[in-house]
Amino acid sequence: MPLHDDASGLALEPAARPGDPLDRIDTPSLALDLTAFDANLRTMQDWADRHGVALRPHAKAHKCPQIALRQLALGARGICCQKVSEALPFVAAGVRDILISNEVVGPAKHALLARLARSARMAVCVDNAANLVQLSEAMAHAGVEIDVLVEVDVGQGRCGVPGADAVLALARQARDLPGLNFAGLQAYHGAAQHRRSREERAQACQEAASRAAACAQLLRDNGLACHTITGGGTGSVEFDAASGVYTELQPGSYAFMDGDYGANEWGGALAFRRSLFLLSTVMSTPAPDRVILDAGLKSTSAECGPPAVYGTPGLRCVAINDEHSVVCVEPGAQAPALGSVLQLLPSHVDPTFNLHDELVVLQGGTVHALWPIAARGLSR
Amino acid sequence: MPLHDDASGLALEPAARPGDPLDRIDTPSLALDLTAFDANLRTMQDWADRHGVALRPHAKAHKCPQIALRQLALGARGICCQKVSEALPFVAAGVRDILISNEVVGPAKHALLARLARSARMAVCVDNAANLVQLSEAMAHAGVEIDVLVEVDVGQGRCGVPGADAVLALARQARDLPGLNFAGLQAYHGAAQHRRSREERAQACQEAASRAAACAQLLRDNGLACHTITGGGTGSVEFDAASGVYTELQPGSYAFMDGDYGANEWGGALAFRRSLFLLSTVMSTPAPDRVILDAGLKSTSAECGPPAVYGTPGLRCVAINDEHSVVCVEPGAQAPALGSVLQLLPSHVDPTFNLHDELVVLQGGTVHALWPIAARGLSR
Repeated sequence: MPLHDDASGLALEPAARPGDPLDRIDTPSLALDLTAFDANLRTMQDWADRHGVALRPHAKAHKCPQIALRQLALGARGICCQKVSEALPFVAAGVRDILISNEVVGPAKHALLARLARSARMAVCVDNAANLVQLSEAMAHAGVEIDVLVEVDVGQGRCGVPGADAVLALARQARDLPGLNFAGLQAYHGAAQHRRSREERAQACQEAASRAAACAQLLRDNGLACHTITGGGTGSVEFDAASGVYTELQPGSYAFMDGDYGANEWGGALAFRRSLFLLSTVMSTPAPDRVILDAGLKSTSAECGPPAVYGTPGLRCVAINDEHSVVCVEPGAQAPALGSVLQLLPSHVDPTFNLHDELVVLQGGTVHALWPIAARGLSR
Repeated sequence: MPLHDDASGLALEPAARPGDPLDRIDTPSLALDLTAFDANLRTMQDWADRHGVALRPHAKAHKCPQIALRQLALGARGICCQKVSEALPFVAAGVRDILISNEVVGPAKHALLARLARSARMAVCVDNAANLVQLSEAMAHAGVEIDVLVEVDVGQGRCGVPGADAVLALARQARDLPGLNFAGLQAYHGAAQHRRSREERAQACQEAASRAAACAQLLRDNGLACHTITGGGTGSVEFDAASGVYTELQPGSYAFMDGDYGANEWGGALAFRRSLFLLSTVMSTPAPDRVILDAGLKSTSAECGPPAVYGTPGLRCVAINDEHSVVCVEPGAQAPALGSVLQLLPSHVDPTFNLHDELVVLQGGTVHALWPIAARGLSR
């Protein structure tokens, strides 16, 4: 058989098209249950509204502009991004209020930030005096102004200054530098999100809130307004919203949930539904107690453990390799047939979204839409 | 300051340009030391040549057509891919001999395989009779022929049939079906690659080779030619090449090396150099014994542990989050300054390449080229 030399017309078909039934979706594909997702968005917005705090959902979880626009339509004040480059497709999609909830270092990133600030209200975190000066120079040079939040370490032990005196020094510096507007405090406690017991999370949040409150008080005592105290994640918003300290919440995963958050003890007033699934096909049935799926580490992150199998009792993912998952069929359980599609529950939402270029949105048993995960891979 | 409503002109600058010095590369960026990489390619090709076996390097490790073309230019017979969609950019780049070293299940994937087979000699693995029939129907319908290798489980316990009788049955079926050409055996032992001691790896490889040899013998006894026995990875090629059984080797990671393969006991005739680095900037210096880097789980996979810090003694990556790595500065070590760039060694090559859209190729202290990781994200 002669081969054609010209392969330039080769292109990959989409994994699905709107209106397709579930069994027409090619795999592996990341899928969203729109009903559960929308319920999660409303639950969180209601919670913020009821407590009189602003909601600024984190886009690092999903990297998908359509999701951010839906959150904004329900009442979110703006969004968070974690990287400057990540913000780009959101600004291009019309989002006009973005907090980079992270320190931004280096001339290339400052230049991009200044470009974004021409189209959107941008804010960043700072924890270093030299960085603050460089930020100011870049913004002033570009003729733009951005908001600056001083990050205080409220217990995570990652970025941020250790306490109120250091916060005051940076806040004064930010107030006095051109191109910058001192706006308040970033007080996020990432490690608190995954403490399993509600009691432990409540305690960590109380400690974080009181550290943030002490900083804000010192700022006010020194004549510096602290309009914004922002922080909180899916595992802590229940307590942060009610703290009386935070003015703004930054959760991201609540819209989807994952194995890691699912392992938390919940039971409070807030509850979220699973809305995110990885669809994967049984590609080998080598033994009665073992089937192999066509999704691995390149389709779902596994540093929090392998994904769970949803809705089919007695099937357990026991190993995950680059392109395969090994599923054990427990005694008495029905082994799925070759070619059948299983729903996996990712163990960690954020790095899983970052593996996919599009989200297959499901409603009423069919494909509703494909939403581009436009910020996938944008980590600079 | 008035905001511009039109953000449509926003585009991300490349992370680097050819000729840039190292300190102009934006981060996080995946970087290749071209000298070490080329040396690794030559070492492996020489090893295969010396043992009279063909080299078919695995493209699932890097997903980068430029790398495959370089391997082919040195003498590789063809390449492996792990997914049909992954093969697409390689065929488009001119690669004309591709083994999908995996089972391919479902009509969408069979249709794509048939399209690729118009431009390239394609082969796939099978371990199921029904799948073999579906493959045959799809290929015959498209008027193409592909090679089929029966996968035998030589010790990994993942895909593949258990032994010689099952191999013979599938091989006969493949021989008799239209659109298919029975070509031989897939006999890959993935789990053997990472056994730490050379002795254990040698033993697992000997066992795998003798299982493959028994299958080939039964095929020959029944009048079926078994031209190809293919398998082997970076941790096992030393033994597979010398086994007298394998006709073809499939290693991928050898070109780069990673933390996981680095932890193997080597010491034999084969040695590979580190050529792959993740460049990451110090973005926060919150304490004398701790600095924070701007690369996390979205830039390097961590299911094999966090990356190592290269070339700067006394720095140790102790935690990795979605967008951050926490580096401990050990007593007596020099803490890197804010804004300085560190070289991280990924712990696992394959899923790390899959996080990046381009590879920054370095030579002689400057940027030589940017190579697109064109199959990034192609997991169907």
